[in-house]
Amino acid sequence: MRDEFSLIRSISPANVHQPSLHVGIGDDAAIYEGAPEMEEVLCVDTMVEEIHFRRDTLTPFQIGYKSLAINISDLAAMGATPKFYLVSIAVPPQWSDREIKTLYRGMAECAAPYRMDLIGGDTVSTNAKLVVTVTAVGHVPKGTRLLRQRARPGDVVFLTGTVGQSAAGLELLNKKGLHGPFTEEEELLVLAHQQPQPQVEAGHLFARSGYRIALNDVSDGVASEANELAEASKVKLVLKANTIPLHPAMETFSKEQQLEWALFGGEDFQLIGTAAVDAFASLQQLAIQRGISLTEIGYVEAGSPVVELEEGTARSVLKKSGYNHFAK
Amino acid sequence: MRDEFSLIRSISPANVHQPSLHVGIGDDAAIYEGAPEMEEVLCVDTMVEEIHFRRDTLTPFQIGYKSLAINISDLAAMGATPKFYLVSIAVPPQWSDREIKTLYRGMAECAAPYRMDLIGGDTVSTNAKLVVTVTAVGHVPKGTRLLRQRARPGDVVFLTGTVGQSAAGLELLNKKGLHGPFTEEEELLVLAHQQPQPQVEAGHLFARSGYRIALNDVSDGVASEANELAEASKVKLVLKANTIPLHPAMETFSKEQQLEWALFGGEDFQLIGTAAVDAFASLQQLAIQRGISLTEIGYVEAGSPVVELEEGTARSVLKKSGYNHFAK
Repeated sequence: MRDEFSLIRSISPANVHQPSLHVGIGDDAAIYEGAPEMEEVLCVDTMVEEIHFRRDTLTPFQIGYKSLAINISDLAAMGATPKFYLVSIAVPPQWSDREIKTLYRGMAECAAPYRMDLIGGDTVSTNAKLVVTVTAVGHVPKGTRLLRQRARPGDVVFLTGTVGQSAAGLELLNKKGLHGPFTEEEELLVLAHQQPQPQVEAGHLFARSGYRIALNDVSDGVASEANELAEASKVKLVLKANTIPLHPAMETFSKEQQLEWALFGGEDFQLIGTAAVDAFASLQQLAIQRGISLTEIGYVEAGSPVVELEEGTARSVLKKSGYNHFAK
Repeated sequence: MRDEFSLIRSISPANVHQPSLHVGIGDDAAIYEGAPEMEEVLCVDTMVEEIHFRRDTLTPFQIGYKSLAINISDLAAMGATPKFYLVSIAVPPQWSDREIKTLYRGMAECAAPYRMDLIGGDTVSTNAKLVVTVTAVGHVPKGTRLLRQRARPGDVVFLTGTVGQSAAGLELLNKKGLHGPFTEEEELLVLAHQQPQPQVEAGHLFARSGYRIALNDVSDGVASEANELAEASKVKLVLKANTIPLHPAMETFSKEQQLEWALFGGEDFQLIGTAAVDAFASLQQLAIQRGISLTEIGYVEAGSPVVELEEGTARSVLKKSGYNHFAK
């Protein structure tokens, strides 16, 4: 619907990158030129107050930041380069104009490293909860985009960065509230939940390597994403529990707790994927050169599309949201 | 956020046009190839239950239909060709899966004449009101897109089709409820409110004519849109009240009431614009050939960016949402 606040066009936070010459905010539409030899990639994600975030765990700035980060992570999982974003927001009366502007500043901050332009959107009012929908536009050279369905038996399963930190941070926020106090370690976990870093550079590296790679981003926890890879590729994934890279700031928690966060917590926005053994060795070299952490966490077998977790000599079926232990 | 219902991928209503070869629903992203020599146009519009629609004035099918029609109208106002759409929807518990599927069928019905593909989106839950955000993608040959800022003194102001019908229909719905009973005439007005027809073909005609044209779609009433044209182009628009084409089914209402709906009602999704006198004569010929109704409703003068309404010998300043009569 027609903008009621016209916020999108009236705000101009200092760190909003100025639209380039080939981009314009049209009247009620945004216009840009697609690049030749590129495929356009569009992602849409919606965050609803009380469902996907609460005001006692995220500040307005962070709600903005995170709502764009989620979309950038979807682009990263395709190996795409983020280009533009549009924001549609339904604002309830209890949100002030100032808070909404801060939310947009959070998005601009998240967009800045990628020089993404805010090219349009819609602001409407609601008498219910805040709803933020971000549409992100990226592009990827034709034929290089990454998909989930490319895992094959014999592949290595790999993961960028560490996992579990977002769920750990949320637990701390739930316990102590938005303003803590938090230790230095806890602060890292809290920030990982509030302002996650999408893995755009790693996605690029994978897409441009030319290797056959299956890829997914960790929005719902390693267990869920690994299951999606297994289902899409019709293979079995085996994850080795003791190789899953856990965030060092979680050390004061029990190993079981850390693993549970890593497997079922989600919102870490790392990338999980598979590649042939030789390809993985090369990818790891490339990753090291760019300062990207890349860890082997398992392997792919032929078989029904399930995920299994190896802990010592025990194996359990790893469902999207829980264990299913069985006797060996 | 990750789909919770996965509705987008699981529904396949019979009349959803199958994606073409160059379009794919990626994992969490939609991919398409931009056409060479084309500019991409993106529109986003959000509709919130109880704010933009009520369940006692629109069926779920019509909510879907209208949420896409609004976006297609934005594309039409640029002269763009609709290509794809994405849907992000926040669903409260009181909406059934069946109703949500019906809503998607409404969008598919609206999309069908344009062979627009649903290429992705996001479905999340909310404990508040339904929020539907549609992102529509279109394209337009480079350099031909239409803008509001091109009106010049001496231009003709024109309008496609008739106006007022959507507001009249809403009044009838408010009075009689979703199921009427309505007379045949009333049915036309009600349907005009529930399933408005965006003017894509007229937008094409204007964009491809090569003439300098300022254009806007009538989403907020003729008064509001004319003011936007005046402001964007820094000119004065004079509208002749007795030339504004009113929907014939409104005849039983007073002339004053009809004019009020036309000027301030909105959601008719016709196109209002300006063109030089000679250009307009040619456009009218072209419009006749294609069965598009195109009416001259006023003219453009140099002066401060306002809109004036001529009624007989009286002139009043026409604000976005009301009259401001003044002595002549």
